[in-house]
Amino acid sequence: MKKVYGIVFGGMSFEHEISVVSAITLKKVLEGFDLRFIFLSAEREFYLIDAADMKSTYFSRGGYKKAKKLRLTKGDFEVPGVFGAKAAGIDCMINLIHGGDGEDGKMASLFDFYGVPYIGPGIEASVLSFNKLYTKLYAKELGVKTVDYQLIRRGEAYDVTFDLPVIIKPLRLGSSIGVSIVKDVSELEYALDVAFEFDSDVLVEPFIPNVREFNLAGCKTGEFDLSIIENPQKEEFLDFDKKYLDFSRDGKPAAADIAPELAASMHACFRTLYGELFEGSLIRCDFFVIDDEVYLNEINPIPGSMANYLFEDFKATIEALGTHLPRKRNIKIDYLYINKIQSSKGKV
Amino acid sequence: MKKVYGIVFGGMSFEHEISVVSAITLKKVLEGFDLRFIFLSAEREFYLIDAADMKSTYFSRGGYKKAKKLRLTKGDFEVPGVFGAKAAGIDCMINLIHGGDGEDGKMASLFDFYGVPYIGPGIEASVLSFNKLYTKLYAKELGVKTVDYQLIRRGEAYDVTFDLPVIIKPLRLGSSIGVSIVKDVSELEYALDVAFEFDSDVLVEPFIPNVREFNLAGCKTGEFDLSIIENPQKEEFLDFDKKYLDFSRDGKPAAADIAPELAASMHACFRTLYGELFEGSLIRCDFFVIDDEVYLNEINPIPGSMANYLFEDFKATIEALGTHLPRKRNIKIDYLYINKIQSSKGKV
Repeated sequence: MKKVYGIVFGGMSFEHEISVVSAITLKKVLEGFDLRFIFLSAEREFYLIDAADMKSTYFSRGGYKKAKKLRLTKGDFEVPGVFGAKAAGIDCMINLIHGGDGEDGKMASLFDFYGVPYIGPGIEASVLSFNKLYTKLYAKELGVKTVDYQLIRRGEAYDVTFDLPVIIKPLRLGSSIGVSIVKDVSELEYALDVAFEFDSDVLVEPFIPNVREFNLAGCKTGEFDLSIIENPQKEEFLDFDKKYLDFSRDGKPAAADIAPELAASMHACFRTLYGELFEGSLIRCDFFVIDDEVYLNEINPIPGSMANYLFEDFKATIEALGTHLPRKRNIKIDYLYINKIQSSKGKV
Repeated sequence: MKKVYGIVFGGMSFEHEISVVSAITLKKVLEGFDLRFIFLSAEREFYLIDAADMKSTYFSRGGYKKAKKLRLTKGDFEVPGVFGAKAAGIDCMINLIHGGDGEDGKMASLFDFYGVPYIGPGIEASVLSFNKLYTKLYAKELGVKTVDYQLIRRGEAYDVTFDLPVIIKPLRLGSSIGVSIVKDVSELEYALDVAFEFDSDVLVEPFIPNVREFNLAGCKTGEFDLSIIENPQKEEFLDFDKKYLDFSRDGKPAAADIAPELAASMHACFRTLYGELFEGSLIRCDFFVIDDEVYLNEINPIPGSMANYLFEDFKATIEALGTHLPRKRNIKIDYLYINKIQSSKGKV
């Protein structure tokens, strides 16, 4: 029988809308799959959406409010009803909630807790890639270079030591929200204020104009299944509108024209970073290349429309990934210690 | 009206049983509080436990299976029933699940997702302190010393460079599970095998015999509310049985007899580590002192019986903490981008 995949999207997230766009794109590129669409509203209610309703205006106009509500239960979603609940019949979820709820560890936690199999980053992988500082510390620990930085914590005195221009980033948000490039010292305070609106901690990095940027996606399906390397055509940096359009991509770009050594070096960095931590997820690593050295810029553990356009046979990749999800450890509780202590007290 | 606190304990965790002991201790030390006891079974079912049944044998004998089942819902737990569900009426949860489920981010995620106020570490704080490597990287980043280490990843070649004895620790487990002290090189491989049973990554640290160890607990309730500093009387290292008994502590120890400068230094480390990250939780930092310098050993974001014995007025601390929980950001979804894009396509 055909495997039923559930795509969860939306969420209480600054990237709610691009998640809707991502899900609509995935419906298109996974044509032929047996898909269920599960929308998480901004109010954190789950709805089962008819495939025919998978249009952005259906959500913006609130049409989903008339859809069936779902509830998470052991191993599945269910539709509650007067005469008992009915299982949604999903074999494997695909977490497509970008930003908050999806990439901050909540969705992974819910699925792990209820024992629902899913494609997507686990709790730790989520937290690690959601926080730009942790990403850097992790990469550095594993010997992968990252751009130099300074951490500024809210309320603490700061002294930016890099030469301008610098780039100011809230520690925990994706999609360029709260990010500024500071070219003149007079703009610094305002840029920091903006970033601190979104986060208690801010990263300052030297801004490298015209840096060569490359994207590489992949997952582990027994062996590594790596995508082509793309050299994305970017403006100075992607603002939210441009990134939004980026999430609806499904056309195939050309692979970047780079030396095989450089490609091999990116592949090696990808494998190191992915490790066992990201098992079960399809991630996209965004690299910078500076003086022929590879630097990790960021890890997207749920890339827009799952970076489908970078894979030669995206459907095959997803199918293989769905059969290579990390095993969850079940722990047997035998009350050995309580029994032992009680018996030593003479209480058993 | 009196605030109703719900204590959640148990969980699918190697520390399930000590969580039961912790909860029983908390019942005693929070006498006079309006408490509800919510047991999470090894099968991940929530049960509402009568206060009179809060005895360890009630759980080891499976008595809880006859208790009322609970379900998480918006802002509260509820008791499902034929004629609709009844809210449990809890104002604030206390997360007392040690180890997996409690300290790995799952409980924080569930409470955040359902909007249930809780005392306990948030998702990121959980992941950070659950993973001993991330704890070290975080501390180092903030200028707090930690013991030197080597990371070994499963399946990779290794070469332990420290002089023996060393201590081998799985990256993600508490309560000394899978931990060994290796005194002779012949024991190394076996110790690593044991640790890799529990984790894909292992830390190797120089083992420092007779190191001076100190515990300091605290939380932020507007200002910092710090406990006394204790010099715990320990064996070489605490094995599970001894640690187990440690979780039922409620007697007051004497404060460690240390120089004011050293105490001040530990206080400063604690404040730095706690930062904004641990807001809403009562944590215990375990420090080593080597050559009069303070080193972080580990952060316990849900210490056994909440380290009640270290506080002068534990009830007052909990009451104050319950009114100083971090504010969660609500995100307004206005579908501005979808509308804009639709209108630019002439579709609205």
